Amino acid sequence: MTQKLDAWLTNSLMHSKGVASGKIGSSYSITEASQGKYHYVYGPYAEPVLSISPGSRISVETHDAFEGKIQSESDKPSEILNFPYLNPQNGPIHVEGAEKGDVLAVYIERIVPRGPQPCGTTLIMPGFGGLVPTDNTAMLTAPLPERVKKLHVDPIAGTRWNDKIVLPYEPFIGTIGTSPEIEAISSLQPDYYGGNMDLPDVRVGAIIYLPVNKAGAYLYVGDCHAAQGDGELGGVAIEHPTVTTLHVDLIKNWSIKWPRVENEHSIMTIGSARPMEDAARIAYRELIDWMAKDYGFEEIEAYMLLTQVGGVRVGNMVDPKYTVGASIKKSYLI
Amino acid sequence: MTQKLDAWLTNSLMHSKGVASGKIGSSYSITEASQGKYHYVYGPYAEPVLSISPGSRISVETHDAFEGKIQSESDKPSEILNFPYLNPQNGPIHVEGAEKGDVLAVYIERIVPRGPQPCGTTLIMPGFGGLVPTDNTAMLTAPLPERVKKLHVDPIAGTRWNDKIVLPYEPFIGTIGTSPEIEAISSLQPDYYGGNMDLPDVRVGAIIYLPVNKAGAYLYVGDCHAAQGDGELGGVAIEHPTVTTLHVDLIKNWSIKWPRVENEHSIMTIGSARPMEDAARIAYRELIDWMAKDYGFEEIEAYMLLTQVGGVRVGNMVDPKYTVGASIKKSYLI
Amino acid sequence: MTQKLDAWLTNSLMHSKGVASGKIGSSYSITEASQGKYHYVYGPYAEPVLSISPGSRISVETHDAFEGKIQSESDKPSEILNFPYLNPQNGPIHVEGAEKGDVLAVYIERIVPRGPQPCGTTLIMPGFGGLVPTDNTAMLTAPLPERVKKLHVDPIAGTRWNDKIVLPYEPFIGTIGTSPEIEAISSLQPDYYGGNMDLPDVRVGAIIYLPVNKAGAYLYVGDCHAAQGDGELGGVAIEHPTVTTLHVDLIKNWSIKWPRVENEHSIMTIGSARPMEDAARIAYRELIDWMAKDYGFEEIEAYMLLTQVGGVRVGNMVDPKYTVGASIKKSYLI
Amino acid sequence: MTQKLDAWLTNSLMHSKGVASGKIGSSYSITEASQGKYHYVYGPYAEPVLSISPGSRISVETHDAFEGKIQSESDKPSEILNFPYLNPQNGPIHVEGAEKGDVLAVYIERIVPRGPQPCGTTLIMPGFGGLVPTDNTAMLTAPLPERVKKLHVDPIAGTRWNDKIVLPYEPFIGTIGTSPEIEAISSLQPDYYGGNMDLPDVRVGAIIYLPVNKAGAYLYVGDCHAAQGDGELGGVAIEHPTVTTLHVDLIKNWSIKWPRVENEHSIMTIGSARPMEDAARIAYRELIDWMAKDYGFEEIEAYMLLTQVGGVRVGNMVDPKYTVGASIKKSYLI
Repeated sequence: MTQKLDAWLTNSLMHSKGVASGKIGSSYSITEASQGKYHYVYGPYAEPVLSISPGSRISVETHDAFEGKIQSESDKPSEILNFPYLNPQNGPIHVEGAEKGDVLAVYIERIVPRGPQPCGTTLIMPGFGGLVPTDNTAMLTAPLPERVKKLHVDPIAGTRWNDKIVLPYEPFIGTIGTSPEIEAISSLQPDYYGGNMDLPDVRVGAIIYLPVNKAGAYLYVGDCHAAQGDGELGGVAIEHPTVTTLHVDLIKNWSIKWPRVENEHSIMTIGSARPMEDAARIAYRELIDWMAKDYGFEEIEAYMLLTQVGGVRVGNMVDPKYTVGASIKKSYLI
Repeated sequence: MTQKLDAWLTNSLMHSKGVASGKIGSSYSITEASQGKYHYVYGPYAEPVLSISPGSRISVETHDAFEGKIQSESDKPSEILNFPYLNPQNGPIHVEGAEKGDVLAVYIERIVPRGPQPCGTTLIMPGFGGLVPTDNTAMLTAPLPERVKKLHVDPIAGTRWNDKIVLPYEPFIGTIGTSPEIEAISSLQPDYYGGNMDLPDVRVGAIIYLPVNKAGAYLYVGDCHAAQGDGELGGVAIEHPTVTTLHVDLIKNWSIKWPRVENEHSIMTIGSARPMEDAARIAYRELIDWMAKDYGFEEIEAYMLLTQVGGVRVGNMVDPKYTVGASIKKSYLI
Repeated sequence: MTQKLDAWLTNSLMHSKGVASGKIGSSYSITEASQGKYHYVYGPYAEPVLSISPGSRISVETHDAFEGKIQSESDKPSEILNFPYLNPQNGPIHVEGAEKGDVLAVYIERIVPRGPQPCGTTLIMPGFGGLVPTDNTAMLTAPLPERVKKLHVDPIAGTRWNDKIVLPYEPFIGTIGTSPEIEAISSLQPDYYGGNMDLPDVRVGAIIYLPVNKAGAYLYVGDCHAAQGDGELGGVAIEHPTVTTLHVDLIKNWSIKWPRVENEHSIMTIGSARPMEDAARIAYRELIDWMAKDYGFEEIEAYMLLTQVGGVRVGNMVDPKYTVGASIKKSYLI
Repeated sequence: MTQKLDAWLTNSLMHSKGVASGKIGSSYSITEASQGKYHYVYGPYAEPVLSISPGSRISVETHDAFEGKIQSESDKPSEILNFPYLNPQNGPIHVEGAEKGDVLAVYIERIVPRGPQPCGTTLIMPGFGGLVPTDNTAMLTAPLPERVKKLHVDPIAGTRWNDKIVLPYEPFIGTIGTSPEIEAISSLQPDYYGGNMDLPDVRVGAIIYLPVNKAGAYLYVGDCHAAQGDGELGGVAIEHPTVTTLHVDLIKNWSIKWPRVENEHSIMTIGSARPMEDAARIAYRELIDWMAKDYGFEEIEAYMLLTQVGGVRVGNMVDPKYTVGASIKKSYLI
């Protein structure tokens, strides 16, 4: 926890606009025990597990997406998993002073695996995934057979896939967000408040900005991945329980409609929708809005420039809404 | 209220499978006053406004989708309407004995306009509609100008559109459904539990079957339309406040994933999703399931027969999910 | 061929705007022998099989979509059918005086089955259909098993589906259109020039209006269906060879972007695209354009009226583009 | 032209499977003069401009996508451009010995700008682009205003966007492919044969593999971009005329359904479809097929591995079909 702050952070929007100006105040932890019941919806109806002031650092014991129930490669996910009680979330965390229309800034300081090995899990379950019939893309044809892989995840050595292949440990937060104002939406879904975006850019060393929709913001977090490809093709990344350390600040007088990410090199906006082109449209539309409002671009000029230099990252192509990030390098924001 | 029951009802699934066997028991009413606060989400977190036993008849004072706030053609919807406080719903109605996995059967007995004329409203508002940029299909281009039409709605004479055009009064329920188990979802959205389907087949004289996702079912209803075309192109039908009379029964040992409709001539399944083909896939997939489980068809045989005789009705192409109904005439269910 | 003309035809756009004013001039026939080689693309590179003047009546021997190759219920479509040599088309028919920017009007006078019984065919083949993985909606899961049904089609008695079910004979043209200017596109695809729309409204007694994209128009026609449900769910209707009689006229000084249909009661515009909502958007956008240009509606007024009275017919949800028709009753066009 | 071959090429599929084994044989050039008429469709109906044997090197004078007609920032694209005569293509090049079912391998050796400066063009035109109403996503709302930017493109100094921003010269081929068997499809469209993919991975130093659909293959190429962001948001990259040098080989006994790319570090498959998720599905489905057939993976194992390490590149989100590439690093193909 003595990690030195990245230099770019001092110039980040979080540090320049945040109520706490990037200074770290109190530290908290949410353990499995203090969390007690995990949550399966993003909503305003749960009791906060913690209340913090802007600037606080929080260390969170996240569960894997299956709440640790898949313990062996011979387990049958369809018999063990029980929708909608999937993708357990820590929180909600009440942020003092947060009001509808504000922005929560969350710097992801650290993610480390926890629990006995093999602590990583991936699997195929019926009706879920990018290349199979699903509840939405309903078909008459048969599903794939179920399959479970339990994987040893080491933050240094990486995840051992098989005798020949090792995946580097590139952890990120699959599901993070604030509460909607009056809705309570499954933690399997990503949307305007964040949620299950499964976007690898929400990684250690990045800041995610989240719109505040209700007083206190109600931050939820869970579902950390040890690795994931673009689109999370089969629907299940390397899921693993972690200790995740966040640094939370609050930004007043800045309003955003969808989550945004900032890292050393670029800024990114995130859209979640179906079909996938609508997710991309949202992301790019928000990026143009950001370039116009905070960096002085004329909108059409931003549109034309992004045509030449915009980046697109497909987070997931499997969840109830697909997630796409659109980005531009900071070197062009001049 | 002395309306004679249609003959076909005695052979309906509602009457043959219902706990109350189609018999009408107690009668209730929900007035604006007894409803008190209307609801803007379909969820389990609200207190029931009424508890009934299967077989009850309920008369409900529904609001229009704007809660009566649009009173003049010079009103500006974007200034008056306040998302997410749109599409107010009556309920929830607790149904005794209903458990997760059951089915609620709701016969729509009667819909009549209420309130001072002009009681009908349709309008164009920015960011909503089938041929305009929206929050999902985000664009850089400008919205349409706002426009409001206030319309005289008469159950006999119809809705007077202008000097030359009168629309027949063909009332139906735009939004009806049960509560999700743990989610609370905007009443603007249709989904597996019903909700804002905007499907004209949910009309007077039809039965809608709804999956029960939680104990007590929690029935919500609102948003009646005096007329609507397929797709609800501009996003807003002839919205009007009504007195809507429902007859509610409960079916045990029958489980459905999505809403279904039965009328004198046909059975219909309803899917809501994006893109629109996924809504159609869901609807047809469920119809094949119905034909197989309740009418003895082999699934592939049902698939081939529906290729020749299946009907498709597009409910809405404007809401957060699009709604499509797939139907087959009862004369083929032999 | 002595069929009396419907009275409404004399007021149709075909009769009021056509070069031949609806008068029937010369009569022609295209037999299998005179057709010789059938075509598998809609394009300008084929030699016309016939040249006619506006007002001509043509009787065409169409093949079924499989060119008669599926002869028994034990045939394996995947072994017999050979993409892209599917959906054989008659034509092209050169229309004298037709120039880019004109409109071809085609009244469908008569469709009768031809050839030995059972002359009807429907089937399931791998990779094609609305509820199975396809080349576009590519998946890892297995296809449905192949299956062929050969069916007796009688214009009076209907199509005998099985011992219990008989389908009424409701014939229409699955594939009809003009040539693109320089493209040659598979006859399996519908698009702006018509093609494989599989829309039941293109039936006996209706007029279809087609944009002319090149000199001579080059009309193609084929793929008649004895019956079909909305969406053509499994991908293959009751395909059958026919004698189809068309009455062709040419309209100058009227330009359309997509096919249109007129019948006794309504006018319809047709869009073909993916996802399905884009097909619906095109159809409704064109219908508003039609209402504005030919019937004096303000565009936004037409948009609001269609919200209340527009009709949507899903032609196909299986072809390379999906086809949707949007319609309004003539009684509202005042 | 004395560029030394990259070392990895000797291990590429092109060199190990190609008829010419990667050896360079004869050299050819196609100048504007020798090309004569450019082409606007990918099809078999044009006469080859050149016939080569496998192993040949060809230097091609490509036009920009507007055939040089946009010469000033005050030009009005809607007045100057004339659909379908857009995106002019060189070729077709007949490849001796190529038969349906083979694969054409094309190594992109070099791309350099040609012609007087400013030789780069980007623009906004009505009805085209990712954040505007289009012919497919038809709307009632107004288009963006037209705008043209003429840009100085230098292969060393890059493209001067404005006083502050310079874009690096990262040239690639926007449109390249073989002829369909009997179709002739607009050069604005990408599809199974290649075409207007607008995918930046088709760059200098990469090999593209293209399915052969007809004898002689008929290679077309054009539409080089000096730079482009993911998705080509506004619809028009930095278009510029070039001299593009290709090295073409032919692979027998290897059959592919969609284009593939190989570079030093990874292999990529390309899908083009709407909606965008279908393009991604095709790409990943083909990548699994490749991993299974050429690298010994079990299909489901490949699916699960790609879930963790697959890469997605969105080529275009603006053309008649959207293009997505799916990739895996060669280091995992063990």
